[in-house]
Amino acid sequence: MLTLTSDFGSPYPAAMKGVVLRRTDARLVDIAHDLPRQDVRAAAFWCRETLPYFPPAVHLVVVDPGVGTDRDAVVVRVGGHAIVAPDNGVALPAARRIAAEADIAVECFRYEYADPASSTFHGRDVFAPAAAAVHEVGVDAVESLDAIAPLESVAPDDAAGAVVDCRFPEAEVTAGAASGEVLVVDDFGNAITNVPGSFLDGREGGTLSVNGTEAAVVRAFADVDAGERLVTVGSHGFVECDVNRGRGADAFGLAPGDEVRLTEA
Amino acid sequence: MLTLTSDFGSPYPAAMKGVVLRRTDARLVDIAHDLPRQDVRAAAFWCRETLPYFPPAVHLVVVDPGVGTDRDAVVVRVGGHAIVAPDNGVALPAARRIAAEADIAVECFRYEYADPASSTFHGRDVFAPAAAAVHEVGVDAVESLDAIAPLESVAPDDAAGAVVDCRFPEAEVTAGAASGEVLVVDDFGNAITNVPGSFLDGREGGTLSVNGTEAAVVRAFADVDAGERLVTVGSHGFVECDVNRGRGADAFGLAPGDEVRLTEA
Amino acid sequence: MLTLTSDFGSPYPAAMKGVVLRRTDARLVDIAHDLPRQDVRAAAFWCRETLPYFPPAVHLVVVDPGVGTDRDAVVVRVGGHAIVAPDNGVALPAARRIAAEADIAVECFRYEYADPASSTFHGRDVFAPAAAAVHEVGVDAVESLDAIAPLESVAPDDAAGAVVDCRFPEAEVTAGAASGEVLVVDDFGNAITNVPGSFLDGREGGTLSVNGTEAAVVRAFADVDAGERLVTVGSHGFVECDVNRGRGADAFGLAPGDEVRLTEA
Repeated sequence: MLTLTSDFGSPYPAAMKGVVLRRTDARLVDIAHDLPRQDVRAAAFWCRETLPYFPPAVHLVVVDPGVGTDRDAVVVRVGGHAIVAPDNGVALPAARRIAAEADIAVECFRYEYADPASSTFHGRDVFAPAAAAVHEVGVDAVESLDAIAPLESVAPDDAAGAVVDCRFPEAEVTAGAASGEVLVVDDFGNAITNVPGSFLDGREGGTLSVNGTEAAVVRAFADVDAGERLVTVGSHGFVECDVNRGRGADAFGLAPGDEVRLTEA
Repeated sequence: MLTLTSDFGSPYPAAMKGVVLRRTDARLVDIAHDLPRQDVRAAAFWCRETLPYFPPAVHLVVVDPGVGTDRDAVVVRVGGHAIVAPDNGVALPAARRIAAEADIAVECFRYEYADPASSTFHGRDVFAPAAAAVHEVGVDAVESLDAIAPLESVAPDDAAGAVVDCRFPEAEVTAGAASGEVLVVDDFGNAITNVPGSFLDGREGGTLSVNGTEAAVVRAFADVDAGERLVTVGSHGFVECDVNRGRGADAFGLAPGDEVRLTEA
Repeated sequence: MLTLTSDFGSPYPAAMKGVVLRRTDARLVDIAHDLPRQDVRAAAFWCRETLPYFPPAVHLVVVDPGVGTDRDAVVVRVGGHAIVAPDNGVALPAARRIAAEADIAVECFRYEYADPASSTFHGRDVFAPAAAAVHEVGVDAVESLDAIAPLESVAPDDAAGAVVDCRFPEAEVTAGAASGEVLVVDDFGNAITNVPGSFLDGREGGTLSVNGTEAAVVRAFADVDAGERLVTVGSHGFVECDVNRGRGADAFGLAPGDEVRLTEA
């Protein structure tokens, strides 16, 4: 199985699929190709929220604002999963999530690649062939891939040779308030913060202030009328600022990166 | 085979796919994930217009404005097809279409589910595991699924214990006029009404008034100039109000639910 | 393997997939379904830039402004590939590219089809069944498909019985200037011209004027600051007018079909 994630829109992902399918008959599964453009943090977030649900697979992830520069390429292996991506941090949060759930280690392999056909589409010319090669040789045998390029094992926490990481900021939570930020706005317009869902424990049925705007704390969208603001624990385990049948980000005036302060109303 | 339909946009459907693929190696086919948000009637329409074209399959359909409330979950079985969906009517029109084409019966199974991980993403936590389980046990053996939850067979027309249904309004058609409404506006901007296509029999080459706006009655879009309004029988068998290379809904000022009166011009 | 390309948006492609999957268990791969509406030249361009990357396959391509008129249907065979499409030229550029890379010939088969169920959705009622039939009989045996319809082999260059072709205009290039046009604007907003990338040979690090607007000639997007204009060789081998992390078409004021004149600044 080989999953594909990018910010390429359409139809560039198809070229990647063709390249992959010339080299392997892996089952292909699209994760998303409309991730926010060149936004490594958002892509890392969505990979963390989707890839761990999959059975062991090779995951091709290309959100790559540094395409054509001298940034490296990495294979991040965790259990039976291998994430093939640019060395910009996009792979690490998903890998750490998988590692934590199975209590296993994350291994990073940085590799060089021959000068590709294009300097603007490494998804097609660098990462797709690499992902196909990993799928063909098997995730357990990534080390044997010197046919592609010299692979170097790099500890993710090795300061000297470390691969690039992406860490989400942590919210500050006290008994009565939480300060965090919006990590992403999803397709529904829900503003997903980094405040742990546990902050809402015992508050269901009450009201919270979000940067001064009051909203009901509920379990289900339909617990408030259509068009009404609400605060709930989203499917990622974080506090979300939403609107039933509407766009929470608009109603609360929130965008990715914005500060969010939740206080008792 | 397992098809997926939702209003989730991207990348939430990927989490559903991961959940399914951990439990079964069914071939996955996306129907659509950009259906109008929380619009059960539109989803029911599009399921009716797509699912019957498939060979026997499990169909996971999640357009679910009541997510997290106490609405039930259903498996609707018709021939070798099983539609796994919230109990909000979204599955019934497609099932009735399949039943009518093969002259077979529709069976509904309502089931309870354990409290899921999230109250906002039952697609991932309730319906995807259920669809995978139905695929694994086989559509013919849905009754044996008490491992998941107690299944209760409910006749769709049993007023007492009936599952929720969704019925499209019927147009009123006389010899010289038809009164109906817009069921959906498709991606091309075509305003698809509930007026049967047979209303246009013998009118090709003529003109009709749509709420007072005249339009040619034609067989093909290209029968009028680019930008010109037209009325034709769409691929669903209903009268559509379209524009060649344009958006009929805009040109006629029509939105889903709007009344449409077709009269001789 | 059977790929699908259209301008149908969603969810009409699903009906085509159902029709195909009732007739064959071919692996399905989506190329794109959001191509510019009714734009045969753009579709021909994107088919040329994606289909040749695939292993031998049947390619169902339906961008079809003449749907319901008397335009013909074609199967274009090149090596192990067969493109099933309306006879409007959409298939030829991809076929020629595949032929050129493998030094093989392009063969065209025009066929008639029985009057289909709808006059507006030949993707579902004409081309999907034809593509499935080609897949089932095998690309090498297209001639045997008189079960579907009488097939007629037509040389693409035979003026008398020629199938419809689509040829991209060629740019005029001199030592110091190039005059061409924008072929397409991609999802990133990059304005892709027909000026061969070789025009930028030796100019990297310099500046060019695009219709009077200056821009750096670079190798990678990130070679200029975010928001800055640039000119580079795109992944298709043509000169692109782009903006790092922005939309080049907007910044340069370019749309498909616009004239582009590149001169030394």
